Amino acid sequence: MIDEQKYPILSRVDYPSDIRQLSLPQLKQLCTDIREYMVDTISEIGGHFGGGLGTVELTVAIHKVFNTPHDLVVWDTGHQAYPHKILTGRKEALNRIRQYGGISGFLKRSESEYDTFGAGHASTSVSAALGMATAKNITKVDKKVVAVIGDGAMTGGMAYEAMNNSGVLKTDLIVVLNDNNMSIAPNVWQISNYFTEMISHPDYNKFKGQIWDLTGKLDQFGDRMRRVAVRLEQGIKAVITPGMLFEALGFRYFGPVNGHNLHQTIKIFEQVKDLKGPILIHALTQKGKGYKPAESHTQRLHASTPFDKLTGQAYKKSGEPVAYTKIFGNSLVEIIEKNPKVVGITAAMPDGTGLDILKEKIPQNYYDVGIAEEHAVTFAAGLATQGIIPVLAIYSTFLQRAFDQIIHDVALQKLHVVFILDRAGLVGADGPTHHGTFDLSYLRIIPGMVIMAPKDEAELRNMVYTAIEHCDGPVAVRYPRGSALGVKIEPGFNKIEIGKAEKLTEGEDVAILAVGSMVHYAEKAVAILRENNISSELINMRFIKPLDTQLLDEIALKHEKVVTIEENSLPGGFGSAVIEYFNDKNYKNDILRIGIPDAFIDHGTQAELHKQISIDPSGIVSQITTFFKSTKSTEKVTY
Amino acid sequence: MIDEQKYPILSRVDYPSDIRQLSLPQLKQLCTDIREYMVDTISEIGGHFGGGLGTVELTVAIHKVFNTPHDLVVWDTGHQAYPHKILTGRKEALNRIRQYGGISGFLKRSESEYDTFGAGHASTSVSAALGMATAKNITKVDKKVVAVIGDGAMTGGMAYEAMNNSGVLKTDLIVVLNDNNMSIAPNVWQISNYFTEMISHPDYNKFKGQIWDLTGKLDQFGDRMRRVAVRLEQGIKAVITPGMLFEALGFRYFGPVNGHNLHQTIKIFEQVKDLKGPILIHALTQKGKGYKPAESHTQRLHASTPFDKLTGQAYKKSGEPVAYTKIFGNSLVEIIEKNPKVVGITAAMPDGTGLDILKEKIPQNYYDVGIAEEHAVTFAAGLATQGIIPVLAIYSTFLQRAFDQIIHDVALQKLHVVFILDRAGLVGADGPTHHGTFDLSYLRIIPGMVIMAPKDEAELRNMVYTAIEHCDGPVAVRYPRGSALGVKIEPGFNKIEIGKAEKLTEGEDVAILAVGSMVHYAEKAVAILRENNISSELINMRFIKPLDTQLLDEIALKHEKVVTIEENSLPGGFGSAVIEYFNDKNYKNDILRIGIPDAFIDHGTQAELHKQISIDPSGIVSQITTFFKSTKSTEKVTY
Repeated sequence: MIDEQKYPILSRVDYPSDIRQLSLPQLKQLCTDIREYMVDTISEIGGHFGGGLGTVELTVAIHKVFNTPHDLVVWDTGHQAYPHKILTGRKEALNRIRQYGGISGFLKRSESEYDTFGAGHASTSVSAALGMATAKNITKVDKKVVAVIGDGAMTGGMAYEAMNNSGVLKTDLIVVLNDNNMSIAPNVWQISNYFTEMISHPDYNKFKGQIWDLTGKLDQFGDRMRRVAVRLEQGIKAVITPGMLFEALGFRYFGPVNGHNLHQTIKIFEQVKDLKGPILIHALTQKGKGYKPAESHTQRLHASTPFDKLTGQAYKKSGEPVAYTKIFGNSLVEIIEKNPKVVGITAAMPDGTGLDILKEKIPQNYYDVGIAEEHAVTFAAGLATQGIIPVLAIYSTFLQRAFDQIIHDVALQKLHVVFILDRAGLVGADGPTHHGTFDLSYLRIIPGMVIMAPKDEAELRNMVYTAIEHCDGPVAVRYPRGSALGVKIEPGFNKIEIGKAEKLTEGEDVAILAVGSMVHYAEKAVAILRENNISSELINMRFIKPLDTQLLDEIALKHEKVVTIEENSLPGGFGSAVIEYFNDKNYKNDILRIGIPDAFIDHGTQAELHKQISIDPSGIVSQITTFFKSTKSTEKVTY
Repeated sequence: MIDEQKYPILSRVDYPSDIRQLSLPQLKQLCTDIREYMVDTISEIGGHFGGGLGTVELTVAIHKVFNTPHDLVVWDTGHQAYPHKILTGRKEALNRIRQYGGISGFLKRSESEYDTFGAGHASTSVSAALGMATAKNITKVDKKVVAVIGDGAMTGGMAYEAMNNSGVLKTDLIVVLNDNNMSIAPNVWQISNYFTEMISHPDYNKFKGQIWDLTGKLDQFGDRMRRVAVRLEQGIKAVITPGMLFEALGFRYFGPVNGHNLHQTIKIFEQVKDLKGPILIHALTQKGKGYKPAESHTQRLHASTPFDKLTGQAYKKSGEPVAYTKIFGNSLVEIIEKNPKVVGITAAMPDGTGLDILKEKIPQNYYDVGIAEEHAVTFAAGLATQGIIPVLAIYSTFLQRAFDQIIHDVALQKLHVVFILDRAGLVGADGPTHHGTFDLSYLRIIPGMVIMAPKDEAELRNMVYTAIEHCDGPVAVRYPRGSALGVKIEPGFNKIEIGKAEKLTEGEDVAILAVGSMVHYAEKAVAILRENNISSELINMRFIKPLDTQLLDEIALKHEKVVTIEENSLPGGFGSAVIEYFNDKNYKNDILRIGIPDAFIDHGTQAELHKQISIDPSGIVSQITTFFKSTKSTEKVTY
């Protein structure tokens, strides 16, 4: 139960039906309570933060005016939806948000009937909402449908596709543009600049000036002219407004409204809710609203580990090694300092990808293209045709968005584009929408692709260097979220031979072929196995494509038993590549594939998830032990 | 050599440098020659047609004004680029376009230095051109960059992402919007409606009326007022024009110009070519321009088989069975007649996917969302949340665009969306940009996905029915381009048990597991093998996921030798799924995987390509024969 004294109204509100009983002053207090509750809770446990503080009034207004869950609200990416979770039966659950077994940090259909559509990737809400709204044509069940989309997500192409399609279909649909003019990184949205500039458009001001100038001189007709002029101005304004773009897409535009003025916000929802056709409400909000440290450090408090409530400073975890992200960012800067033909590209995630370091140090070789992964890849391909070496740093899960562009625009044309996949494998608290568990499988099927995964940060540096300076055609380097291992980093870079693995330990009983993050786990497993009298030859494969076939040939002859280990989904992954090779050579070894099962994995810490699916060191040991038992007793098959 | 009498100017023009020597009257004659030459040639051999006829003047003007190949022209999808090919050294090669060993129907970097960027998928040009233009910041080589994009391609989200990004970067870049108000299917672009309507905007006309009305009454000041009014109108026009949207995206807008007026078109290119920043030229063109049958049947002559030059009627191939596309289209209509909760969705390809039949017969259950595959999938997911069963018909190659949406919006939420993949496998003349050779691999790695491939049109009907009426969650049916087998079709539908294969022949020496289009080839191969005294057990697997593991267990015990056959890329494909299963069960059979090698396959007829990569019946026989020889002599491996 939450504290009645501290949160006088929130303590009485469990569901939207409770909100609908409250007066305006009570609703305002509810907003205060929600903010306070969010700061109290998230400062303790960490989480996405700024977005939710910006949508408190919007959320209250939506659930006040619309008859949820009968009416449908679609939130574009869950960051903004913490207040929604608090107000839809999950208030107490907030203190376990993003934790193993706790509620998700994003919307989740299986979690609540109020979560109409899950979303961890941006720009999907208008498409989904349009689908829901269109269903009415067939179900004949009348439901209002509201999509809430941030200005950042509005840079994504699929939002535009959906807006355009809404205009054509003329479906009843309300899109709320939650415009905090910030998105994840600022200044990547031309449209938002446009909004700001339109109001002071020189053409517009020139007309105005001329009219007033002229009518002032016309004594007799002055008044009448001025009246016409006023009407004219209104007419012009009706056309030339921030809404122009949306009007062009077939939406009726309302706004901008102050998204923190609860009265205004409720009023506009009430006014538009029964209107026909696609409606756009442009709400101006402030990320982090109401909590000073979040207002002034919007990037840092977009998502945070636990922090000091007063200062907003995240508590430092002492002694943790530097993150892979930062190692990559620094390596890239070092490489570009010597080779200015290399550029870094991010899709609105400079901080998350480590490109913020490049942005600061060599801004002329840095591009942020907005939340636009498809464009990012083909933009890189265009650069590559001119002899530039583009390095595209994108999370593994988000690169799925550009799968076709990698095939069609890069690989088919054999262009040298370097893909840096951060957050490959299980990412932890962000859960299934963000796990990067498919990249080895979806990249491996692309002809001509080179795919590497480093065992530690020293190797990451050399792989980034090799991918940039010693490859041709498409090449990917993938590594996990979080801290590296803390190994010593030598100055400079060394080339890694393409397709060559590295032998780490000699052993007699089994060959273990591991990639990337799993090499370190495998080393620990090997030590435990040794205690159990199993002697392992451990290989850091380094390359998923091309495989080190010379080494595989040796292994096949030397070891009856072979184990592959990867932090990637098993279907079509690294282990699958190995057994394809063994099969095609007609090798008959016993092979155990260790990796992520064919399922979506929920959220939790990385360690918890690794343990859950038995890819942590002890899980690996136990899988290998079982493998030894089961294959020992295999009888010869007779045909 | 082409005929000097028939094509007086074209016969003298080989490269753009020749164009630059010609006078305006000669250039006009060149346009006439090109049209005539295209009609003469393409009517004989077939090809994409209407698009190119619409861009003759644009192409001539671009190569006249810009210094290609130093300056860079990017054509969005190659359809429009036949005149470009004719004028850049490939005039004589046109008569082998899209044929095995001949030039590609799309742009191809390896074919000509004038082909700066290959594109078979739409909406990529602005991204690529922006990349090229941005390279100048680093290479310091000054090149003009021009992208030519159709209004259809402009509905694709990545074009919008690129336009937005261009506005932010303020790069020197010229985008030519080739607006034939047609795209592949009409009326899916809200923006294009907007263009038409803007000019008659009531607000705009109201101002105009009031001003003229009032000034007419003002004798003394009338003239002066009217002068102001004219300026006002110009001012307003400068803002309220079809260019508004593009201005909002940061482009300077010029147009609309008549894209068939060579003089005007050349003039505008000359005027803008040295301007700074992003420029949009809005050219109005007519698809099929100058050839009556193509002007009036734009859809039919978008791409055509050989046709009668006078009437535009395609020559009928007599006796060919109905295409899979049509079988699907008719099946869907039959199903929806009984179950109105099912809807069909296309991304601007009603004719290509067979949904034109639904569009005509049950328009209220039909949606065309524009060239917008990403939106299409998430729109379908939204519909599915409301109990509608969306059937999304998309070419295999284009569905790559929505890979992330299938994972994140459909599969993760276990929504029942039916994916119909036409053109799976090698598509023939369209070549590598259009081959659907990856879908089994990229769909198979998605948790919870069901994937089927029918052996013939009767099975296709039952699979479509099963996918719609007897599945839950995401399900895909994939089948090849072109004619079905001509088998008898029974009325009504039969449910196929999920994950159950079908045994076609009994045999002792080898088990052949085939999927989809390869079942028929395998049947022929089995007959030949029988003559060679190899007796085969042939299985129509039907399901790529889930596999019929019960049957696989039997096969593993019964047959030492197993062959898998698929019209899909070998890495990660169906054969890979089978060996994953065999491996994980520790079965030691000899397995031969037959399929498409890990490479991009060029264009040619489907039969030519199947033969080239040995997946035609005789290729299959020869692969199996070699397999028998090689595995027979395998010595026992000693560890």
